[in-house]
Amino acid sequence: MSERIIYLNGDYLPESEAKLPVLDRGLLFADAVYEGFGILDGQIVDFIYHMQRLERSLGELSIPMTFTIDAMFHALMQLLEKNNAKFGFLYLHVTRGEGDRSFHYHDQYVPNIFAFTQGQKFAADNVPPAIELLTYPDLRWARRDIKSTNLLAQVMAKQAANQSGAFEALMVDANGLVTEAGSSSFFFIKDDTLYVRPISQEILHGITRQTMLRVAKDRGISLIERTYSLGEVLAADEAMITASSTYVLPVGKIDGHVIGDGKAGAFTLALREGYLAKARSEFYGLKIS
Amino acid sequence: MSERIIYLNGDYLPESEAKLPVLDRGLLFADAVYEGFGILDGQIVDFIYHMQRLERSLGELSIPMTFTIDAMFHALMQLLEKNNAKFGFLYLHVTRGEGDRSFHYHDQYVPNIFAFTQGQKFAADNVPPAIELLTYPDLRWARRDIKSTNLLAQVMAKQAANQSGAFEALMVDANGLVTEAGSSSFFFIKDDTLYVRPISQEILHGITRQTMLRVAKDRGISLIERTYSLGEVLAADEAMITASSTYVLPVGKIDGHVIGDGKAGAFTLALREGYLAKARSEFYGLKIS
Repeated sequence: MSERIIYLNGDYLPESEAKLPVLDRGLLFADAVYEGFGILDGQIVDFIYHMQRLERSLGELSIPMTFTIDAMFHALMQLLEKNNAKFGFLYLHVTRGEGDRSFHYHDQYVPNIFAFTQGQKFAADNVPPAIELLTYPDLRWARRDIKSTNLLAQVMAKQAANQSGAFEALMVDANGLVTEAGSSSFFFIKDDTLYVRPISQEILHGITRQTMLRVAKDRGISLIERTYSLGEVLAADEAMITASSTYVLPVGKIDGHVIGDGKAGAFTLALREGYLAKARSEFYGLKIS
Repeated sequence: MSERIIYLNGDYLPESEAKLPVLDRGLLFADAVYEGFGILDGQIVDFIYHMQRLERSLGELSIPMTFTIDAMFHALMQLLEKNNAKFGFLYLHVTRGEGDRSFHYHDQYVPNIFAFTQGQKFAADNVPPAIELLTYPDLRWARRDIKSTNLLAQVMAKQAANQSGAFEALMVDANGLVTEAGSSSFFFIKDDTLYVRPISQEILHGITRQTMLRVAKDRGISLIERTYSLGEVLAADEAMITASSTYVLPVGKIDGHVIGDGKAGAFTLALREGYLAKARSEFYGLKIS
């Protein structure tokens, strides 16, 4: 099997040759941001929304955006073609650049940019299994709205989940409030109403979340945006998570406690189907009306 | 000028050739730990204490320690020799290793290890200038006792300090308590007593801090270990920070407010001198009694 091709600073390299200097600030300080995109039908899902979030993350950290959205679109589409990636996951990473180790930075750093593709976890158009979550303390920093690579708290949460046999972690803050899942947004259904935590610096502004909420609005599903406790979640009729790598997934159990009837719920499946349809209708550059 | 030589996984490479795969988890997840050491008289300062902390950090994250302390000592001493490093800073970094992007990890990752040297900021044996601090919100995660590369909160704090003309940041938590400096431990003197925050998961367990506290004990300086507010700090007679890159530095101003008489205080200078003497008496492998 030939090697995966990785995009690095304008070049397309075999995986074994795609390397960055050890003095890159991404390694030394996690001074870097990223985006993850779904790949569906050989196209990039929610492309413009992810790029707008990337632009915001870069801006919050004063990392210069050294490319246009259109140029990056063409570079990433070439990457998909070179890897024959039709369904799966696309990852894009921007570091501040490399130099002598010093926490503070200056204007002379040149961002290092790389991107790669991976396979999908669940076939997009199949009904996915109801997954299990494990609760874990939310140990993250105070700026969770910046999609940076400071991800060790999430690694710890998702490792604990994986070791327990769960698919994802559900993070709970020091006040007993649910923030979100380890690398997914979280939602629940109670009495035909969709509950979601509002965006703030305490959670990531999920792109799949945002598009799915547009679908919910289109379908007239009533929505309540507020914070909530774990106790409320455990009493839900349905629960679901969203992420660019998995779209919308039903949640069947949390810490072994069955949610609803433990199977994928009707709202969840309708929102997944609606999400995929919406995503397909909005591929960048295609403008299917 | 010839290139700096960098240690990477057992090899000694010119800086331009020292690279890691973009799929290294240090880049993707900041799934990595590190140590910084002072270099004094061509020796590594507080070597065994830093290595014990590194071993603890690795253990907290279940990253295997794939080297012995003695083997690493010899590798790092070779690095110092190759770079003719007599005074300055030594950096050692251990990532969990490389592989397909997945938050959770398995036992098959092989750590990537690199080390490099840098010059010193202040000549060790000169009286250092009294530096200025800028207060900044402590935005860090909940496991500050793990010396990981999740350092973006510190980058933001130290960038703000640098932009204001200050040398370091002084981080203050949401309750108005001082935690520590951006990449240094913090202390103050009031009425001939040394105040320091006790170690916990809320601060890094500073190695220079620990050795300096032994010096303070040797000299019979009375010590109070407790948390404290910024208000108490501003009313101090002296203040100081410690770090492996700068040893003990006097603090003259915080947010423009003069501390004591604004100059290096007598306790501070005695502790710096005592620290350097203690460090020199404890070089690893020399066992000067």
